[in-house]
Amino acid sequence: SGKVKEQSMVCRCCVYCHVKFVQPCLVELLGSAFFVFIGCLSVIHNEMGTGLLGPALAHGMALGLIVAMLGNISGGHFNPAVSLAAMLTGGLSLMMLLPYWFSQLCGGLIGAVLAKEVSSKERFQNTSGAAFVTVQEPGQVMRAVVMEFILTTLLCLTVCMSTINQRTKSPLAPFAIGCAVTVAILTGGTISGACMNPARAFGPAIMANHWKFHWIYWAGPLLASLLVGVLIRLFLGDENTRLILKYQ
Amino acid sequence: SGKVKEQSMVCRCCVYCHVKFVQPCLVELLGSAFFVFIGCLSVIHNEMGTGLLGPALAHGMALGLIVAMLGNISGGHFNPAVSLAAMLTGGLSLMMLLPYWFSQLCGGLIGAVLAKEVSSKERFQNTSGAAFVTVQEPGQVMRAVVMEFILTTLLCLTVCMSTINQRTKSPLAPFAIGCAVTVAILTGGTISGACMNPARAFGPAIMANHWKFHWIYWAGPLLASLLVGVLIRLFLGDENTRLILKYQ
Amino acid sequence: SGKVKEQSMVCRCCVYCHVKFVQPCLVELLGSAFFVFIGCLSVIHNEMGTGLLGPALAHGMALGLIVAMLGNISGGHFNPAVSLAAMLTGGLSLMMLLPYWFSQLCGGLIGAVLAKEVSSKERFQNTSGAAFVTVQEPGQVMRAVVMEFILTTLLCLTVCMSTINQRTKSPLAPFAIGCAVTVAILTGGTISGACMNPARAFGPAIMANHWKFHWIYWAGPLLASLLVGVLIRLFLGDENTRLILKYQ
Amino acid sequence: SGKVKEQSMVCRCCVYCHVKFVQPCLVELLGSAFFVFIGCLSVIHNEMGTGLLGPALAHGMALGLIVAMLGNISGGHFNPAVSLAAMLTGGLSLMMLLPYWFSQLCGGLIGAVLAKEVSSKERFQNTSGAAFVTVQEPGQVMRAVVMEFILTTLLCLTVCMSTINQRTKSPLAPFAIGCAVTVAILTGGTISGACMNPARAFGPAIMANHWKFHWIYWAGPLLASLLVGVLIRLFLGDENTRLILKYQ
Repeated sequence: SGKVKEQSMVCRCCVYCHVKFVQPCLVELLGSAFFVFIGCLSVIHNEMGTGLLGPALAHGMALGLIVAMLGNISGGHFNPAVSLAAMLTGGLSLMMLLPYWFSQLCGGLIGAVLAKEVSSKERFQNTSGAAFVTVQEPGQVMRAVVMEFILTTLLCLTVCMSTINQRTKSPLAPFAIGCAVTVAILTGGTISGACMNPARAFGPAIMANHWKFHWIYWAGPLLASLLVGVLIRLFLGDENTRLILKYQ
Repeated sequence: SGKVKEQSMVCRCCVYCHVKFVQPCLVELLGSAFFVFIGCLSVIHNEMGTGLLGPALAHGMALGLIVAMLGNISGGHFNPAVSLAAMLTGGLSLMMLLPYWFSQLCGGLIGAVLAKEVSSKERFQNTSGAAFVTVQEPGQVMRAVVMEFILTTLLCLTVCMSTINQRTKSPLAPFAIGCAVTVAILTGGTISGACMNPARAFGPAIMANHWKFHWIYWAGPLLASLLVGVLIRLFLGDENTRLILKYQ
Repeated sequence: SGKVKEQSMVCRCCVYCHVKFVQPCLVELLGSAFFVFIGCLSVIHNEMGTGLLGPALAHGMALGLIVAMLGNISGGHFNPAVSLAAMLTGGLSLMMLLPYWFSQLCGGLIGAVLAKEVSSKERFQNTSGAAFVTVQEPGQVMRAVVMEFILTTLLCLTVCMSTINQRTKSPLAPFAIGCAVTVAILTGGTISGACMNPARAFGPAIMANHWKFHWIYWAGPLLASLLVGVLIRLFLGDENTRLILKYQ
Repeated sequence: SGKVKEQSMVCRCCVYCHVKFVQPCLVELLGSAFFVFIGCLSVIHNEMGTGLLGPALAHGMALGLIVAMLGNISGGHFNPAVSLAAMLTGGLSLMMLLPYWFSQLCGGLIGAVLAKEVSSKERFQNTSGAAFVTVQEPGQVMRAVVMEFILTTLLCLTVCMSTINQRTKSPLAPFAIGCAVTVAILTGGTISGACMNPARAFGPAIMANHWKFHWIYWAGPLLASLLVGVLIRLFLGDENTRLILKYQ
């Protein structure tokens, strides 16, 4: 009977572990893979006629639907920068940050691999496999960093305010998050590529072996996460989220 | 008086049958007919300027609105692959699977017939009546199958997670499902046609009498349904849906 | 004191009349005016590049937002065919049908007048003032009527199922209704113009004095209303809406 | 102990002031900055292919997402004309009007400065920095004023009816407000530029030093606010909002 109890204990532990750890990470991996797969192919197979509109809608709607579908399990980040901002504003425990990042980068890599597999070699090379090649000269770097910084601020703010901060939580969050991505690409697509997501940048960069100015797509978004953390914790958050200026 | 009771019994039985069986099947037929009608015409009458964007939005919004309008009655599948996935994840009884499939294929056929009727012969022939003609050579087959498989996985996952799995059920489900279709066409339109729906492939194939590589649009989607069933039953489902790793 | 009471009685009567009669009619007039104004200008000032996409999104989003904003007051029809279908399915009292129709036609006329006023003469004449001129020869008439009939069936079904029929009522109704219009224009824009709304056809027809085949845009939509009434009352409606096959 | 109490009193006062005054103004500034930044860049970097569609979607989705994210804190105006209409219909206290206006104009200026910083000089000059240059001759003025007046009426009506007036309050308000902006640009983009927002006009006008007919973008929108105030207070408002025709 002691053995049975022990087994049952192990079992409950397994389930707990699955629900609290494996499932969220799996969901982040799956969602990131879909997002990067869709994002890459919408760029690789973009026709000339509609310019940025196709990729902008594809990226935005893809993120919107994945958040609507899987957000309840993992929080719906699919983006290392968003996970950092969520952790800073109280939407993710510190212990889960690295597992999330790892899952998201793996997901991004899987998405990029699959996108390469289903594309013709010619198309893939013409578009550098949807890696970010907008920035070609040192003179463009500063602008691209600022752009990534501002756009990721908007994205992280949207996620944290509409899914974490109680006072501004909204059932339309997936719609808002999708819009943030679409809008960002229409705004910054020709300046920095409007990546806002290291996982989106990392996978295709490996597949196309394109690392020039790759750091922009880590530095810009992650700095933006820090700003969003500060903004919400000091000024925009509600009574529970704010660290200063509280009753009591 | 016995006769009156009997009549009333027959009557109640009729009503039960109507609500539980006839109405859902009728709704699936009607929705599939509208979806295929709209889908075909958006391809047949697509102007060059906007490439895939027109058909992508037409298919996605059509499915989104039909799910929003009729989903409460039948579950809102309008797609044999989605019905299979729904059955595997507990959203449809096994007994209803074949009637649903039959209704969806009939609906698809009706939609394709109507689309042919209202189109000029010239337009209809130039576009092969919106049948799927993207795949022309054996060399493209593998890619197309993989593409249909991945995209249908996304679609079925969206439907099952946002309308069946309790923990992730969402009032934005119709919006998410519509986005899944739009995004899939922007992503895979030039590789496999992004059908994801045997009913959408079947009707136009009959009307245009085009059967080359038609099996792709059955095999890819139905395999994806199986994967989604496994994924949700084993890993992604909530306590009630999951078959393993349960607290008793 | 009797006089005071009488005055108060008159007053209450006035208020009741305002809330039950004047306000809904005013709202229908206002909404129809905005819808026709936006619809006409999106056609008159459409640039070549994006074909039907601009007018399709403009019409759909306009109706979606007007329904979201004013639907709670009048039911959100802004279309004589929808009002007829709503009346047949129990969403509008018979007594209000003619006042609604009158308000909608007046609104359509006001919208068309304003659209003409703000447009340059040249643009206005090149586009026939956004009147429906798609059908030019008797050979196209049949197709156009069928098209209007099918598309209006979809629109009226969407409105009646998502705002009137209790079982399928949905908070996403304005989104669904907007999608129905966008989708219809992408589908039938080149065949019949995808009007679906006598008020949308009537106003611009007066301003451009274009009456050729004008009857199509009355006959198609109104016949569709009748079909929708029959479909919902006999088959698709819930226990309260259905006239046959009821428990009891 | 008296000193402690006093300190605590001061402190509570600070917090109250932060929540009731600083936070809303900060949010209006931040939202307006994002809106104008996105709006300007979507125009400055618009590619030819898709005409008005890109800027229309960028402006509309940007406003929609910012309202969804921050609307609960400040009411979600980001537009002096909307704030005026909100004040007139009871959604904003008179004391907050000037601080809101000041925040919105500052935000608009910040957005325009940032948009200039990240754009190349050439692009910026070719597009006049997204300032409104549609109206070039006196003959166009009247049309532009009427257009701004009508479109802003629609926008203010949407905001006031779907977020302030209890009877028509809607959870889809951010979606409706975003649609109003997209639709307005598709409708009036070639006539007046479809600004509807003095803050959107003011910032870019400073950066491009373009003041020709600038008054149009103040007069049209602010007059529309007055009309919306009258319309809602006299006719469209519910029992609590209406000033006349009330049951007691």
